[in-house]
Amino acid sequence: MADPRFFQKSKGFSISEIAEISGCVCSDTADLDFILDDVAPLHNAEKNHLSFLDNVKYKDDFLSTKAGACFISPAMEEYAPADTVCLITPTPYKAYALAAQAFYPEDYSAEDAQIAETAVIDETADIGAFVTLGHHVAIGRNVVIGEHTCIEANTVIEDNVKIGAHCRIGSNVTISHALIADHVRLYPGVRVGQDGFGFAISPTGHIKVPQLGRVILEDHVEIGANTTIDRGAGPDTVIGQGTWVDNLVQIGHNVTIGRGCIIVAQVGISGSAKIEDYVAIGGQVGIAGHITLGMGARIGAQAGVISDVPGGQEYLGSPAFPKSQFFRQVAALNRLIKKKKHD
Amino acid sequence: MADPRFFQKSKGFSISEIAEISGCVCSDTADLDFILDDVAPLHNAEKNHLSFLDNVKYKDDFLSTKAGACFISPAMEEYAPADTVCLITPTPYKAYALAAQAFYPEDYSAEDAQIAETAVIDETADIGAFVTLGHHVAIGRNVVIGEHTCIEANTVIEDNVKIGAHCRIGSNVTISHALIADHVRLYPGVRVGQDGFGFAISPTGHIKVPQLGRVILEDHVEIGANTTIDRGAGPDTVIGQGTWVDNLVQIGHNVTIGRGCIIVAQVGISGSAKIEDYVAIGGQVGIAGHITLGMGARIGAQAGVISDVPGGQEYLGSPAFPKSQFFRQVAALNRLIKKKKHD
Amino acid sequence: MADPRFFQKSKGFSISEIAEISGCVCSDTADLDFILDDVAPLHNAEKNHLSFLDNVKYKDDFLSTKAGACFISPAMEEYAPADTVCLITPTPYKAYALAAQAFYPEDYSAEDAQIAETAVIDETADIGAFVTLGHHVAIGRNVVIGEHTCIEANTVIEDNVKIGAHCRIGSNVTISHALIADHVRLYPGVRVGQDGFGFAISPTGHIKVPQLGRVILEDHVEIGANTTIDRGAGPDTVIGQGTWVDNLVQIGHNVTIGRGCIIVAQVGISGSAKIEDYVAIGGQVGIAGHITLGMGARIGAQAGVISDVPGGQEYLGSPAFPKSQFFRQVAALNRLIKKKKHD
Repeated sequence: MADPRFFQKSKGFSISEIAEISGCVCSDTADLDFILDDVAPLHNAEKNHLSFLDNVKYKDDFLSTKAGACFISPAMEEYAPADTVCLITPTPYKAYALAAQAFYPEDYSAEDAQIAETAVIDETADIGAFVTLGHHVAIGRNVVIGEHTCIEANTVIEDNVKIGAHCRIGSNVTISHALIADHVRLYPGVRVGQDGFGFAISPTGHIKVPQLGRVILEDHVEIGANTTIDRGAGPDTVIGQGTWVDNLVQIGHNVTIGRGCIIVAQVGISGSAKIEDYVAIGGQVGIAGHITLGMGARIGAQAGVISDVPGGQEYLGSPAFPKSQFFRQVAALNRLIKKKKHD
Repeated sequence: MADPRFFQKSKGFSISEIAEISGCVCSDTADLDFILDDVAPLHNAEKNHLSFLDNVKYKDDFLSTKAGACFISPAMEEYAPADTVCLITPTPYKAYALAAQAFYPEDYSAEDAQIAETAVIDETADIGAFVTLGHHVAIGRNVVIGEHTCIEANTVIEDNVKIGAHCRIGSNVTISHALIADHVRLYPGVRVGQDGFGFAISPTGHIKVPQLGRVILEDHVEIGANTTIDRGAGPDTVIGQGTWVDNLVQIGHNVTIGRGCIIVAQVGISGSAKIEDYVAIGGQVGIAGHITLGMGARIGAQAGVISDVPGGQEYLGSPAFPKSQFFRQVAALNRLIKKKKHD
Repeated sequence: MADPRFFQKSKGFSISEIAEISGCVCSDTADLDFILDDVAPLHNAEKNHLSFLDNVKYKDDFLSTKAGACFISPAMEEYAPADTVCLITPTPYKAYALAAQAFYPEDYSAEDAQIAETAVIDETADIGAFVTLGHHVAIGRNVVIGEHTCIEANTVIEDNVKIGAHCRIGSNVTISHALIADHVRLYPGVRVGQDGFGFAISPTGHIKVPQLGRVILEDHVEIGANTTIDRGAGPDTVIGQGTWVDNLVQIGHNVTIGRGCIIVAQVGISGSAKIEDYVAIGGQVGIAGHITLGMGARIGAQAGVISDVPGGQEYLGSPAFPKSQFFRQVAALNRLIKKKKHD
């Protein structure tokens, strides 16, 4: 059970309510009114808990679980313990996510909205209804903040930035030169809108090229802690609707990222790269400048991508190659050293 | 055109003024008094815009540009559209940088200097003329800040730090144990001067080695967002004049970096490494401790450098090898798997 | 000598006092009362300085040092200059660490404890004796802070966090959903306790999985600048006693790290990885999710570890292999290109 100091649990839900919230089919209609109190992992769930099986690696835990109900895929139903109600869905993890959100709703609501006395708000700023501003927040000239947005302590919003409604901006964040849509979430320490790394190299002193673009974050974007997003040099830096970026990622100037992408921690995306919709990029990957990753491309962790990747393809390695080619390279290298050993 | 909410454009300039600012020769003296209002990329520039061609990849855009004037190298003059005045120079991007600075000058000037009421300044600090301190800045004991320096909101300058004139320190920055020269720029979230990672390993608890050096940043150094620079362990950590460091870089204790270097995002430089003048290091490179990169060395993105690199050489790969050797390795590996396939 | 603006030196120590502090044997009992004033590296130490030789690379400096006394291993005694007293120990660097701590003790003491007027403390928080809170610190509801803990400027401690005694929390730090033991040190810009990167992927919008765990930092943990530690998804994220983590490291949700580990800068540890006691991980390493590194494993810089590593083993490369296998791979590749060249 989640530590009640940090997480507020809602009331319980009946199995039929859970089925409705998650869009699942029940294996057994006998217990539809049975009340589940909490979510729990398979191995330590009790009768009043809801659990899920998504990764077949945990099948043994499922065989012996005491959970009252469990999200599973259709193929798993035959393995279910007798006392566990099966909630059947092709996407058990998604179903679990929806149910867990019901048990543990976001703790921020309009009634909590509050502007700290120590926040400093320029008189020209336009602050929407039900906005929360934490301690020592600084809001610059002509800033616009939409309703129900929450900005946590010690965050700095520089002049003319526009932030939409229902956003959550963590503490110690800095935002400049940016237009941010609705339902965007920035975790603590994010830096948005500073100058890109643009200059003409010169032995007598590099000459800065004025960075004249902005950062555009579309609806439902999430940006992880201490990630940095430079503004464009002329064009904008754009992150598309519903794209999620993890911690400590670097996004260079003029980068455009499509919708629904997943960018894992410590990725670096060089200037003017174009990432199309639904691309997934593993941790610590580097993407060279001015290249395109096609729709739905998948890049494995630590890869170094130096040329275009076609849509739907999976690339690995540094320099990156198609997945099968990368694993053949690794295998060939290991055959080579075995051969040497046997010589 | 740059968003006027964020960028203030100066007046226009005649072509002859632009030629003088950028040190270029005009291809055509007929239009020297024609006024240019703004800068723009080749493909959407209009008659009243100034553009540039630096990368031959964009030659087609040049052939059809409507720009009133364009910086180009001498070899490109013959391809110029009839209505575009050529501003000829061996370094078009540098010329563009100088002209763009004229159109969009830095927005900070002495008249704007202002010390926020919420800034906290120790009474022993020495704050120069025309200094700006943002909201909730904290300035420690005996800090010295040179004239015309600007420190943005929520930044912390710890005891005895010295910052020169005409510096710009972003918001949410932390500086301790550092001596910073003039015209230095730190972007938001930079950490300068904390303890290096120095300790004697012991199974009963690692023993910290006191870190007794400082961080020295020479004139015109720029440090990107959320980059971390540890102070020296005994010697100092030093970054030479005019070196530019990108975002999320790690610089360990006792590292010395020469003048005019370029260090791209997410590079990690281990303790006591020595980087000579004019070295360029690509993104996500790792440099081992106690090694030297000779003057003008170039290290490709994601390389792992574990021994000295001679001056002027280009290295790639992890472990890093000279560029030609690295590409021969990649080619050999691919021949090997093709051969296997055909067996 | 350390810059007295930043470092306060204690009184001198006699050679016999140093021997006692560091647990060493003196080579010569004639000079036990001789007073040493400071520490210094071998090459510029003077008669009144204490130095050390740990890395045989610096043996020449030892042969010609003028240091009054020097920590060395037994094998080095025969090379000692006539005027240098040898302090003999199997662990010279550890001895030096202890002696240097005596010369330069931590500058923070109970008498300095002070709560800044600009700190904002919720009335329900429980602040121990001799606690220091810097300017603009924000302390949330029901926070507990143990005695002698120091929290520097502009740091945010969110609701219900518990921090033990004798901790030092740097400036511009954010902590939520965390239980922190005693003698823990967080450097500036650390982010602890934000949501992990947990969601069910969906083309119509990724669905967040509530992150219901905490971050647990045990006694004597140190976390480097701008490092990010996500809270658990259900289980906790745990860092064991005496583990030291460098700058810009990413630690995912549910990661557990044992005691006495060393994690160098820019490492990324994916969710649910398990790092056992006394593991050492080099810079920029990536660790995949759900794998285990056995006790005392050592992972070389930039490695990519995608499966379990047995205890005590050293792995290198991406994907990672045992050290000897990795170097045979590199050698085989170089033989291959030499052969090609000679064909």
